[in-house]
Amino acid sequence: MQLYNYHRSSASFRVRIALALKGLPYDYQPVHLVRNEQLAADYAARSAQRLVPLLVDGDHAISQSLAIIEYLDETHPEPALLPADALGRARVRSLALDIACEIHPLNNLRVLRYLVKDLGVSEDAKNAWYRHWVEGGLEVVERRLTSEPQTGRHCHGDTPGLADCLLVPQIFNAQRFDCRLDGLPTVMRIFDACMALPAFQAAQPSACPDAQD
Amino acid sequence: MQLYNYHRSSASFRVRIALALKGLPYDYQPVHLVRNEQLAADYAARSAQRLVPLLVDGDHAISQSLAIIEYLDETHPEPALLPADALGRARVRSLALDIACEIHPLNNLRVLRYLVKDLGVSEDAKNAWYRHWVEGGLEVVERRLTSEPQTGRHCHGDTPGLADCLLVPQIFNAQRFDCRLDGLPTVMRIFDACMALPAFQAAQPSACPDAQD
Repeated sequence: MQLYNYHRSSASFRVRIALALKGLPYDYQPVHLVRNEQLAADYAARSAQRLVPLLVDGDHAISQSLAIIEYLDETHPEPALLPADALGRARVRSLALDIACEIHPLNNLRVLRYLVKDLGVSEDAKNAWYRHWVEGGLEVVERRLTSEPQTGRHCHGDTPGLADCLLVPQIFNAQRFDCRLDGLPTVMRIFDACMALPAFQAAQPSACPDAQD
Repeated sequence: MQLYNYHRSSASFRVRIALALKGLPYDYQPVHLVRNEQLAADYAARSAQRLVPLLVDGDHAISQSLAIIEYLDETHPEPALLPADALGRARVRSLALDIACEIHPLNNLRVLRYLVKDLGVSEDAKNAWYRHWVEGGLEVVERRLTSEPQTGRHCHGDTPGLADCLLVPQIFNAQRFDCRLDGLPTVMRIFDACMALPAFQAAQPSACPDAQD
């Protein structure tokens, strides 16, 4: 398998964690987002969205980080990243979507660029926007993780899964943009539990082959 | 089952379509977003996110439209809304996420409110923002639906599924905000095929009990 991705893309980071948790080897194919390599003709020929990550498995290319992780979980079931029961699966998916739909889309590079270039928003207002959606979104995740009995050492029980694959990259982003994290004891406890594991260490941006680019 | 939702919420609309396609009866519980009923104490006690839709099935509440639809598909498998094969499932999920993560989050009510109230964006600039993300995002969906051989009468083959549940509400939104749709022949062909079906007709905003609110 090849993974087209970028070290600092948090959607890419999610997939790298899933691959590492499953112990699956892959070719790391860097796509430099800040240099707009995702818009170049050769990459656009692979990716209709001109987005990373993109997983190539044999003749097939799969886009969208959550779809990739579900695919990996179906084709390489052990260790499972989703619970066996429908209610548990619904909970994990909804936690993942609380991050993937409510937080991350508002804060990716092209949105921040639009705020600055098209709307003429100041650097301070852009950073306030970023923190607004991250902090409000993570408060929701904290409320759920604290109140829902299925939370364990990780987001769902005591083993890392899909929701943890989403949570950790979002915290990396929050830290980069100096978001408030002190009101999130359960989120940060789970973040620390994840980062104690070799799979999360190996997948983090600073460990990537393109980390210096 | 009870569905807490709002007639004009496109995430709610997705779930209504799925329930209708499966022929599942439910109690329609309106939550008026423009009046901020989602923030009221009684609703906040149910929903950590203060968002619609929320499906209540017995003692369990499930949030996030995609997680709800996957749950319905697992607990009421016929008719299936996801293909049987892993690659097909990945394709349908990634199409759904192209809408749920790349288009819709940028254009929901709270984001538009932030643009106007916190960033002081004009009505024209707000509408341009809306159209920018919808039109660019739907171009991606069009490119995929036109080029990928699995597209049929519907987004994946000849029966409606998860991706169609996402596509139709997004087109309703695009029409409300006068987005350009003339460059989207495959998208609009599939939209028309969906709207010819009773399930999509029954689920549309104008057919909802709270349509006049």
